[in-house]
Amino acid sequence: MVPAVEESSFLRACRGATVGRVPVWFMRQAGRSLPEYRALRGSGSILQAIADPALACEATLQPVRRYGVDAAIVFSDIVVPLHAIGFGVDVVPGTGPVVASPVRGPGDLDRIRPLEEDDVAHVAETVRLVAKELAGDGTPLIGLAGAPFTVASYAVEGGSQGFTRLKTMLYAEPKTAHALFDKLTRAAIVQIEEQIAAGAEAAQIFESWLGELDRYDLEEFSFPYLARIAEAVRKKGVPVIFFGTGMGGHLERIAALGFDVVSIDWRMPIEDARARLPGAAVQGNLDSTVLLGPKEAAVDRALRIVKAVVDAVHAFKWK
Amino acid sequence: MVPAVEESSFLRACRGATVGRVPVWFMRQAGRSLPEYRALRGSGSILQAIADPALACEATLQPVRRYGVDAAIVFSDIVVPLHAIGFGVDVVPGTGPVVASPVRGPGDLDRIRPLEEDDVAHVAETVRLVAKELAGDGTPLIGLAGAPFTVASYAVEGGSQGFTRLKTMLYAEPKTAHALFDKLTRAAIVQIEEQIAAGAEAAQIFESWLGELDRYDLEEFSFPYLARIAEAVRKKGVPVIFFGTGMGGHLERIAALGFDVVSIDWRMPIEDARARLPGAAVQGNLDSTVLLGPKEAAVDRALRIVKAVVDAVHAFKWK
Repeated sequence: MVPAVEESSFLRACRGATVGRVPVWFMRQAGRSLPEYRALRGSGSILQAIADPALACEATLQPVRRYGVDAAIVFSDIVVPLHAIGFGVDVVPGTGPVVASPVRGPGDLDRIRPLEEDDVAHVAETVRLVAKELAGDGTPLIGLAGAPFTVASYAVEGGSQGFTRLKTMLYAEPKTAHALFDKLTRAAIVQIEEQIAAGAEAAQIFESWLGELDRYDLEEFSFPYLARIAEAVRKKGVPVIFFGTGMGGHLERIAALGFDVVSIDWRMPIEDARARLPGAAVQGNLDSTVLLGPKEAAVDRALRIVKAVVDAVHAFKWK
Repeated sequence: MVPAVEESSFLRACRGATVGRVPVWFMRQAGRSLPEYRALRGSGSILQAIADPALACEATLQPVRRYGVDAAIVFSDIVVPLHAIGFGVDVVPGTGPVVASPVRGPGDLDRIRPLEEDDVAHVAETVRLVAKELAGDGTPLIGLAGAPFTVASYAVEGGSQGFTRLKTMLYAEPKTAHALFDKLTRAAIVQIEEQIAAGAEAAQIFESWLGELDRYDLEEFSFPYLARIAEAVRKKGVPVIFFGTGMGGHLERIAALGFDVVSIDWRMPIEDARARLPGAAVQGNLDSTVLLGPKEAAVDRALRIVKAVVDAVHAFKWK
């Protein structure tokens, strides 16, 4: 009998249901840490690889085969929509996204045209191929999209170069910033809806740099757009995961945005996140730098986190 | 009548006493944002400038004269002890600390000899000169020292190049890391004791990169050393201020370390910090990037923070 994906430990955990064991998957599980991925990729750009659904499907499946992770995540990138509309972005190995002509004022907004379904047909096709491959074993597939502040940080700064230009835009040209974030929110929603329609069973939204904003800028320039994206995904009936870093000062407000799951970094104890995020499931917490140390240290740290989660869940239930 | 420095709004606030108005001072208030500082400095290295007590005294006093800030902070740097013992560190404009031969294993520990009082005599002399100048107007002077993880990040990485080498040392060679942190803790205590003996009326301890560690590494490799430094400073009878960034996931544990004041960054609402740091005064919270926007935005953000503090203090008292 084929296991039902809806009964997978990952999707049950996303919904806050009891699971027999803690489901595991990794951020960046697909990619250059795997020898088979390096063999598959060759020398092209990552955006070229993403544009090839057969290759992207294989990259998505490699970690599922090697590690038996409890979920696959589509091999894609948060700058795919910008690239798809011809904005002029590349992802340079060791550097990250690089933009030739960044957004520097209202005159640049026209260069961000609305994302059409056809623009991300290659990602949808990857999702279809992966979903077909995974149908046999009940492993769920996570789709992804970038949230506006984080995608804008590349579009405005021109790359991974801090946040001073974008923050200056928030202070000096708030209308331009809102217009940009509105466009990027619409693009994120189209991107994720297409992946869900193609078979993604969950969606992770990357507002990776949320922690760089203060509470006032979050409330004006990030949270409203995040809530719109969360609502759009939930309307499609799949769990929506929020990912950010440096969120320790804002968890209670993030809890109110409507996400089913919050993916935290290592910068807070996971049981504190559990207590401060009522109504959401919590995942993450391992500092991936531990993988550079001895294997024992990495295993020990991972087990400590799982134990902290299990203890917190039990304490929570026993109340 | 000369106003008593102990009755200054800054020192009263450090002790949690009522103040007539919120005292103000700025991180990096002495330095290159001031035209008179650039004129004073000329082209030498900042460590050369720190080594010249007359020049360092003048740099310390410039922001007090220009802005009428409620406290002066000694013009010094957290890598001064490393430099003073001949470890081989420079501070490169636009880059930060650069170390020629970083600590890469236990064999490098001997290169960090104990800091002697004479090694930091120039900083003590600066403090004496400033204290003499400020004696007339009751403005307190803050001394400073770097905490072990942060100073080690420069000593081990070789500069502002992330934390992967130092974190790998924590996992792979914890004994070497502890030996290094113990040496740097002793150096921090000598450095701050000399400044207090010379007339500093408060001390700020910079564990600037605390937010990069997870709770397990903090508990093993940072908190015990911070508590030792806090205790040493408090024994000298002056308030001790803790500065770190990205602390939102750890405030309750930081509250237990014995600091009188916690200096937070902009990554959490200040009233939340107030509530989560019982027994400590709270300062900071302005994202300095706002200074790149229009003046109105900077004034508005600063006023919002002061209002949030005042409201929180009143709410706290009315309970």
